[in-house]
Amino acid sequence: MSHFIEALQKQYPEKRHLQAFVSANQNTPWLNDVAQKHERKLCADLEEAIRNSGLKDGMTISFHHHFREGDKVINRVIDTLARMGFRDLTLASSSLMSCNASLIDHIKAGVVSRIYTSGMRGKLADAISHGLMKEPVQIHSHGGRVHLLQSGELNIDVAFLGVPCSDEFGNANGTVGKSSCGSLGYAMVDAQFARKVVLLTEALVPFPNMPASIVQDQVDYIVQVDEVGDPAKISVGAARVTSNPRELLIARSAADVIEHAGYFKNGFSIQTGSGAASTACTRFLEDKMRQQNIVARFALGGITGGIVDLHEKGLIEKLIDTQCFDANAAASLAKNPNHVEISTNVYANPSSKAACCDQLDMVILSALEIDTDFNVNVITGSDGVMRGASGGHCDVATAANLTIVVAPLIRSRIPTVVRQVTTRVTPGESIDVLVTDHGIAVNPARPDVAERLKQAGLTVMTIEALYQRAIELVGEPRAIEFHDRIVGVIRYRDGSVIDVVRQVKEADE
Amino acid sequence: MSHFIEALQKQYPEKRHLQAFVSANQNTPWLNDVAQKHERKLCADLEEAIRNSGLKDGMTISFHHHFREGDKVINRVIDTLARMGFRDLTLASSSLMSCNASLIDHIKAGVVSRIYTSGMRGKLADAISHGLMKEPVQIHSHGGRVHLLQSGELNIDVAFLGVPCSDEFGNANGTVGKSSCGSLGYAMVDAQFARKVVLLTEALVPFPNMPASIVQDQVDYIVQVDEVGDPAKISVGAARVTSNPRELLIARSAADVIEHAGYFKNGFSIQTGSGAASTACTRFLEDKMRQQNIVARFALGGITGGIVDLHEKGLIEKLIDTQCFDANAAASLAKNPNHVEISTNVYANPSSKAACCDQLDMVILSALEIDTDFNVNVITGSDGVMRGASGGHCDVATAANLTIVVAPLIRSRIPTVVRQVTTRVTPGESIDVLVTDHGIAVNPARPDVAERLKQAGLTVMTIEALYQRAIELVGEPRAIEFHDRIVGVIRYRDGSVIDVVRQVKEADE
Repeated sequence: MSHFIEALQKQYPEKRHLQAFVSANQNTPWLNDVAQKHERKLCADLEEAIRNSGLKDGMTISFHHHFREGDKVINRVIDTLARMGFRDLTLASSSLMSCNASLIDHIKAGVVSRIYTSGMRGKLADAISHGLMKEPVQIHSHGGRVHLLQSGELNIDVAFLGVPCSDEFGNANGTVGKSSCGSLGYAMVDAQFARKVVLLTEALVPFPNMPASIVQDQVDYIVQVDEVGDPAKISVGAARVTSNPRELLIARSAADVIEHAGYFKNGFSIQTGSGAASTACTRFLEDKMRQQNIVARFALGGITGGIVDLHEKGLIEKLIDTQCFDANAAASLAKNPNHVEISTNVYANPSSKAACCDQLDMVILSALEIDTDFNVNVITGSDGVMRGASGGHCDVATAANLTIVVAPLIRSRIPTVVRQVTTRVTPGESIDVLVTDHGIAVNPARPDVAERLKQAGLTVMTIEALYQRAIELVGEPRAIEFHDRIVGVIRYRDGSVIDVVRQVKEADE
Repeated sequence: MSHFIEALQKQYPEKRHLQAFVSANQNTPWLNDVAQKHERKLCADLEEAIRNSGLKDGMTISFHHHFREGDKVINRVIDTLARMGFRDLTLASSSLMSCNASLIDHIKAGVVSRIYTSGMRGKLADAISHGLMKEPVQIHSHGGRVHLLQSGELNIDVAFLGVPCSDEFGNANGTVGKSSCGSLGYAMVDAQFARKVVLLTEALVPFPNMPASIVQDQVDYIVQVDEVGDPAKISVGAARVTSNPRELLIARSAADVIEHAGYFKNGFSIQTGSGAASTACTRFLEDKMRQQNIVARFALGGITGGIVDLHEKGLIEKLIDTQCFDANAAASLAKNPNHVEISTNVYANPSSKAACCDQLDMVILSALEIDTDFNVNVITGSDGVMRGASGGHCDVATAANLTIVVAPLIRSRIPTVVRQVTTRVTPGESIDVLVTDHGIAVNPARPDVAERLKQAGLTVMTIEALYQRAIELVGEPRAIEFHDRIVGVIRYRDGSVIDVVRQVKEADE
């Protein structure tokens, strides 16, 4: 039958590389076996999935952090890898939390040698700040993580992605099943970029589990596990509803800034994040929107129940969601057709063909410290220890038309407004307004905004005045003592190094 | 500020490549300009989009064929490229139709030198069959096209994708707007693989046009045009409702085969394609499903109004759609949440991490010719001229558990059942049953199926008997005369060459 191949090669020598057909399933052998057609991705246990993935010492593994403090996948997988004898791995989780303290032992034992993450908290962050790792942690933003994947600095060999449900081909979402986390925005990127993708799923549901957030053509192996996460712990340490009068004061003030800074028009867009004050701010916004007959076109980023509430009341047309901060947000994603899940590449990657954050009118962000040049620190605490996350902070700050930072002037007798931030995560040029409980400061680069706020009767002062006020109240804090040794590298969204974190000296050093 | 970079490089020499932060928008300059933030992808006209795309002579351009005979993009773009002086291009359209006859002049003029397509019809196909091109056309299946993209044989430099609506960032779908074509399953693959993607859109709608079939992070340039396609012509030459008694006889017989071959159980899955007999078959299926209380889990592939009807009656749970064959299917995709759009990578690529066709119980396919070894020809007519398309034929035939070919025994006094097909597109080993208006033949490799059909009282005969019956009725057709010269290469789904098409001799040669 294949005499035609010789004729083809003779007539068109440049087609020499073409092979003659052999048989229908020569390259799809599983189609010869009815069971294999259905089961070729299913693994009996995590060990089998790991073996099948081809993971080797020195490779890079990744995870998403949609379950936040309720995550049951990261520790489990790394415990298993340790037991299987893997060493020298690079851990590239979209973020790490207090619940990941067990990593300390794995780092000590040489299982994990390098970490890329958006942030860290708790004992792990403390240990790393005190010099646990031989190599500094690379701290990236959510958008910047995708940039590192795209640029090739970060190459994920195997992604381990926990999902509440998947079918036997790997069509998975975060909204259906017992442990619903909502959007899989971080995981979608890993599914796209990783060489091999292993799904850990609680429920194995009938094919076709579509529409899917993670799609079958991105998935290599599937393991059913008893649990992937505790959704009740998603909102721990992040989104919470406040009744703290100081936070409410800041929230009200931020809502006034939003109203008067020049962008509060029909069809505006906003991102509020998960901080207590910014979440509270959405409540004050509702009244203003109703009074002025204003409807927002979209809200972006991490979505909270408060934002869902405005959506369901018809005050925000679309929710563009990379991460659900609570169960209400996850439930909304499951049922509201205009609540749409997007990947962090679509959300905020500066080298994506388009990032949604570029469309933002206004964003409310938080800060651990902000200095008199408006530089923001969201990573290190007042003791120099890492206890936060870069998140989408620098991505959205530079992209939005109006970037508002909300923060109390003083926390536990430590000033938030400082002469120079301990760690620079977001450059001051990206911040337009600072709202504190002692007044509002506008970046001198935005005289237009300052003028509008003053005309609306808001208390606008210089950031220097806020700094002096803080010093007046609690005095200049004692400088933190660091070793020279660098333990963390703060990567700006474009991959450049905007700062480093140095090893903290022990109190008795 | 960047003394920390020197410290970093000193302490960790392997981090030497890391650059110090310069400024917030160093790598995102459009964020410094409010207009640019919104307009950086928008082009005044097609010429500007082409110039921006970096297209050069010798490169590869691609298109989708969702508008089928109503397409207004392919000819327009290639006319424009010709006017701009481009030469020696590779044209990689997911398919070509009779409406693309104007390509003949562009091929003669050297604008287009190579073609990859699933099929061809009309004057273009005729001219190519008679030796128009210097290089043979590469004919691939829908799944095989993605395989060629994945393997790197086919590298799309610029994809020109027509859509009814897009926002300024390139979030587009095929269901909203004047010229709705429904699923963008072919285009989704081009958007994923092409180096540059140009959208031609009829409507420019407000951001965020989400959920989107083609997503903003896949799109480089956007041009608004007056029309991209005439949806009324999508069903021309493909899906049509038949009242032809012979086709109805075949359809009824195919429905009987489906009922009795062993796969007609609750939760079954099916693909029917767009042929008249297979479309009619769905009508007969409805009664059988109701009588036996059977509901299908999903229907796959090209979706017709007939299949939508069964879905809306609750008889098919999900529609998994690569292509809408008529306006009813497109309208359903817009409104029915369980009518889901998928790419051809998810549909049928043999080297995809999973292809939906592997889940199929049954498929009904058509044939221009089928030989006594069950090999099928869907490309060349009885005169040896190309007039069809490979489509998903060989993809689905090998993947489904039961593959049924429906065809009249004789067309215009020419037998459909032949000793050897003029062109082999799908190997006989993939075909299980042939249903004609003169009886049913079962592949000897499937004695189980033959036994079940006989027990149900169906007329099962050998394919040799069907062949003899055809000869008896109309005689052995005269052999087609070909030159040696190869004008078409038939690629199997895995990229191998399963046959070639040779230049047809003119009647007077």
